[in-house]
Amino acid sequence: MSEGNDFDSFGQQWLPLLEDEMRAVLTSQESAVAEHYGMMHYHLGWVDESLQAGEFGSGKRIRPLLCLMACASVGGDPATALSAAAAVEILHNFSLIHDDIEDGDETRRHRPTVWTLWGVPQAINAGDGMFALSFAALLRSKQRGVGDRSLVAMLERFTACCTALTEGQHLDIGFEDREKVAVADYLRMIEGKTAVLLATALSIGALIGGADQRTDEALYGFGQHLGLAFQIQDDILGIWGDPTVTGKAAGNDILRRKKSLPLLYALNHPTVGDPLADMLASSLGDEDLPAIHHLLDVAGAKAFAEEQLYNHHQSGLAGLKEALGTDALTSPLRSLADGLLLRQA
Amino acid sequence: MSEGNDFDSFGQQWLPLLEDEMRAVLTSQESAVAEHYGMMHYHLGWVDESLQAGEFGSGKRIRPLLCLMACASVGGDPATALSAAAAVEILHNFSLIHDDIEDGDETRRHRPTVWTLWGVPQAINAGDGMFALSFAALLRSKQRGVGDRSLVAMLERFTACCTALTEGQHLDIGFEDREKVAVADYLRMIEGKTAVLLATALSIGALIGGADQRTDEALYGFGQHLGLAFQIQDDILGIWGDPTVTGKAAGNDILRRKKSLPLLYALNHPTVGDPLADMLASSLGDEDLPAIHHLLDVAGAKAFAEEQLYNHHQSGLAGLKEALGTDALTSPLRSLADGLLLRQA
Repeated sequence: MSEGNDFDSFGQQWLPLLEDEMRAVLTSQESAVAEHYGMMHYHLGWVDESLQAGEFGSGKRIRPLLCLMACASVGGDPATALSAAAAVEILHNFSLIHDDIEDGDETRRHRPTVWTLWGVPQAINAGDGMFALSFAALLRSKQRGVGDRSLVAMLERFTACCTALTEGQHLDIGFEDREKVAVADYLRMIEGKTAVLLATALSIGALIGGADQRTDEALYGFGQHLGLAFQIQDDILGIWGDPTVTGKAAGNDILRRKKSLPLLYALNHPTVGDPLADMLASSLGDEDLPAIHHLLDVAGAKAFAEEQLYNHHQSGLAGLKEALGTDALTSPLRSLADGLLLRQA
Repeated sequence: MSEGNDFDSFGQQWLPLLEDEMRAVLTSQESAVAEHYGMMHYHLGWVDESLQAGEFGSGKRIRPLLCLMACASVGGDPATALSAAAAVEILHNFSLIHDDIEDGDETRRHRPTVWTLWGVPQAINAGDGMFALSFAALLRSKQRGVGDRSLVAMLERFTACCTALTEGQHLDIGFEDREKVAVADYLRMIEGKTAVLLATALSIGALIGGADQRTDEALYGFGQHLGLAFQIQDDILGIWGDPTVTGKAAGNDILRRKKSLPLLYALNHPTVGDPLADMLASSLGDEDLPAIHHLLDVAGAKAFAEEQLYNHHQSGLAGLKEALGTDALTSPLRSLADGLLLRQA
């Protein structure tokens, strides 16, 4: 049932239409609120700080691509899923605007974050606006021929996903105040914060494409494993990635004491845990990185994370095969999954 | 078609069921996220700072009452509108949690605000959680017998209301940086921030109750005027209210330089405007209040605000009469509207 498009040509065909749909949603004719929408456009990489149009980094649009590809994979026309795909990407970006405030992050994609330019109050509110407009985007699916029953089913999944996002974010913020976080708790957190949205994007796309329940659930499972693998890969790159490729300073995640999977695994290790915790509790500089890398090596933290990554990748591919049968091998979803996990940045 | 219940007995019958429905939505079985939901419960007046149950001030629940009464007024069973009414109240409280952060307000209903207790990051996220759960509440209407077509229509209105709320809030935050705000711009702001939610609450209740389009639109109009009147009354009480009744310090809104309708009207007055602006630009204390009150009197600011209040009240009642015919006279909606506008706090 897959059309056999490879990943790149699929993106070239659909991403411009996705951007058009997002622009159509994130727009008001009223000049008094132009700046409200301007902040959203800035965050999405469409305008500069003075709200002048340009092309800036805008992210990979992975989630909406998953939605569109899922629709195509079950035999649907991706055009019917464009509004839902826009909803998924707008929701993701709402969460990024709020995350940046909550984490105090001053830059994203090499540009100042929304809150540093317009202040925290307006940035919170611009995020809220995108949250509301993600639902508006989803509801536009009606104009693409999606019936009321499917629309309600999509809204139920989308809403459950929104709730899971905030639960995951609650856990993530809470971890910052805890010295030690169990690996299982960490996986629960990234399940809510990352995996559910990828899974929901796929599931909604499949639903629009007319998938039966079994296929829909299998694609949801593929998305969950893909999301977990994606985040674990992020964690590995944050510690062992090549700074010239990732664009982040070497040791960045360690110096920020970011509670990522390898670090948490080592902190829970019977012999490495205490000395590592002691080092992280004192002031850290580049000169401490070799000693910390040594402790991570002794704990086998990288091997553990890579094993988890491999397992989730394999489980994800099994779900994809369950959903699509032999088409899974040539599906652009397969290319996307492999590409995400082989990435170096 | 009205059942002739008066306002108080309607509330006594339905408010406990509303609280039950809200509790059912704002709940998770998972202990790891107990504090996430605990913040919402605290904000709603159900628990104390340690998340121990008690009875604290919880607001008047005006918006959900409007939703339930609108349903009853057109001949529907309010029980079918309980989930939608919960959605409206949860949405309202999400916006209050974020407003408190954005305005830096440290107390609400005589208790510390959520952000002062749990910090800004978790408070933003708890608000986001309530935003998501307001949609979850609305979708529960399905279990109360609301069909898919009505559900989609309700979601479209609810989503448009969410967008209007954030546009109104954008304008409100922006006003703080402006020396002078036109009365028309102010009315546009409170339209988005207050009136649309009241109108939407009524409209959704009417839709669930089976109202025809004309009735539904008339109730929406009633809600818009009621919302504007409600906010203008708030503005009047903020300057001329009796501190022993309102619970706010005398001159509170003036000393905070709150851009409310009477103050903006006076600031736009040809002779009073400049001297008033000069006074507000310098440091203000209780000793300045008599002079400012004098300028407001000269401008006729109270009379102007009261005239606006009266006009919106009258227009609202006209809409109610259009919607309900002679039943409007005995409708609990009429009692609620009159009660809100005759209030002293």
